[in-house]
Amino acid sequence: MSNNSTAAVIGLGSMGYGAALSLLRAGFSVHGVDVREEVLTRFSGEGGKAFATPAEAMPGVTIVFVFVVNAAQAETVLFGERGAVAAAAPGTLFLLCPTMPPSTTVAIAGRLADAGMQVLDAPVSGGSAKAMAGEMTVMASGSPDAFALAKPALDAVAAKVFRLGDRPGEGSKVKMINQLLAGVHIAAAAEALTLAAREGLDVAQVYDVIRVSAGNSWMFENRGKHIVDGDYTPHSAVDIFVKDMGIVTSEAGGVGASVLLSETALALFKEASAAGLGRMDDAAVAMVLARRAGIRLPGMEEE
Amino acid sequence: MSNNSTAAVIGLGSMGYGAALSLLRAGFSVHGVDVREEVLTRFSGEGGKAFATPAEAMPGVTIVFVFVVNAAQAETVLFGERGAVAAAAPGTLFLLCPTMPPSTTVAIAGRLADAGMQVLDAPVSGGSAKAMAGEMTVMASGSPDAFALAKPALDAVAAKVFRLGDRPGEGSKVKMINQLLAGVHIAAAAEALTLAAREGLDVAQVYDVIRVSAGNSWMFENRGKHIVDGDYTPHSAVDIFVKDMGIVTSEAGGVGASVLLSETALALFKEASAAGLGRMDDAAVAMVLARRAGIRLPGMEEE
Repeated sequence: MSNNSTAAVIGLGSMGYGAALSLLRAGFSVHGVDVREEVLTRFSGEGGKAFATPAEAMPGVTIVFVFVVNAAQAETVLFGERGAVAAAAPGTLFLLCPTMPPSTTVAIAGRLADAGMQVLDAPVSGGSAKAMAGEMTVMASGSPDAFALAKPALDAVAAKVFRLGDRPGEGSKVKMINQLLAGVHIAAAAEALTLAAREGLDVAQVYDVIRVSAGNSWMFENRGKHIVDGDYTPHSAVDIFVKDMGIVTSEAGGVGASVLLSETALALFKEASAAGLGRMDDAAVAMVLARRAGIRLPGMEEE
Repeated sequence: MSNNSTAAVIGLGSMGYGAALSLLRAGFSVHGVDVREEVLTRFSGEGGKAFATPAEAMPGVTIVFVFVVNAAQAETVLFGERGAVAAAAPGTLFLLCPTMPPSTTVAIAGRLADAGMQVLDAPVSGGSAKAMAGEMTVMASGSPDAFALAKPALDAVAAKVFRLGDRPGEGSKVKMINQLLAGVHIAAAAEALTLAAREGLDVAQVYDVIRVSAGNSWMFENRGKHIVDGDYTPHSAVDIFVKDMGIVTSEAGGVGASVLLSETALALFKEASAAGLGRMDDAAVAMVLARRAGIRLPGMEEE
């Protein structure tokens, strides 16, 4: 396989669009699939080929990145009406990139294998800027054959590929653990900066101290800045963490593990979503806590 | 003031002992105070002068580091029987280093000022290794005069001094915010690695992935390693976070701020303490979660 290959990217959201552009830059022909007309037009302008359904995009394709938002969408674009699998050539490699319950990943991978396809469990992280730069992190598991087939495409989209095992499901499990921490840390950053504001501290000064102290986290440094600046432009949205922390708590419940911090964080993301903040940056959970405490953080209007 | 000055360090625990040695290295004469005979003997061997009570240690001293564990001990060593204040020369500078409720810091600072003393609110972080190296972080607030008096001593013990305001209390507030995050992140690391183990993942591999991913935190990187290695040698103890998270939840309750993650983490630290793990490394909260989930983490014996 060389960069003369044709790859499909199903779902041109912030991560999928970045992956598609990275593949184009690496010399792949890229078939982009999305339901949004304006996104397809933009993608065509970048040199990609645009398709409204997965089935139409499959001819000539040897690698398919599934970059939809959740498990339900993944099942639809793979197995639903005008889905990819029925139209794909046998042996096509499918990379499953959404954060999904590990059991769902295993089930979908099984159906793909039954249909004669190769499959890599390949959830990603890193955010949209890293995706655009071809520097995503991939937490992958699957057969050595699948890894070998995927290599040129992974080289194009990722700065780092963790090889986490020979079976689909392991990648999804590690991604779930990452999301557990990420979600709790976002909520903790919101809790800490809201208490700081309530105590009359200068939140920008607190941010500068904590980010070089033992209280720091990747998320505090990244999302704490959003809270300090009052800028909730969505890079990753509240509703993403409603989904991902829901996966954590559901999976943990199924195996009898205690995840009370995750449950607490999930409740906060849900409350933010119910308050109409679901599509804002996930750091917007700070506004829920600020309202409860009767204070205003930067960027919050008078109510 | 020069390094010919005499400083006292009250409380030669892991942080205080490191500060005392750092002051000796910088040329200070150092009066060390502790209730433990063996610690005093060791300190004398390092070139310090050892005293069993604060009052005895005061003659000739111009700077006093208070390095006891909590607010009650601080009040005792300052104002109790054979305490420091009654025996100190007027104008002596007291650095209040324990993590205390901000309101308590303000009250103690007020009593010190009433007694004619200078005072700096100066909680520290960084752990015992940094303390021994003279590289603590200090989150300080107080008058410009107090900062000027403290400078040579702070230069000796700290790599970084945050100057957080002109009044005692501000330093304690910022330290409290740091502890909120540190405590939640330790509990989150325990929750994440326990779920990973329950899911059959290799916790060492998960650790290696997360520490370079968006789920990382300073505490995950530091304490997660203890969990992976099954090494709960106390660097900071469970009971320290019972105290510090208690300060967070109590203070937040007093001002009407919602800190549900902190409350959840506090409950976990309390449960670990009640299970007899109070003097172990704070990462030992993972063992509580592992028992609940019916699994064994590295270092846990069969039960």
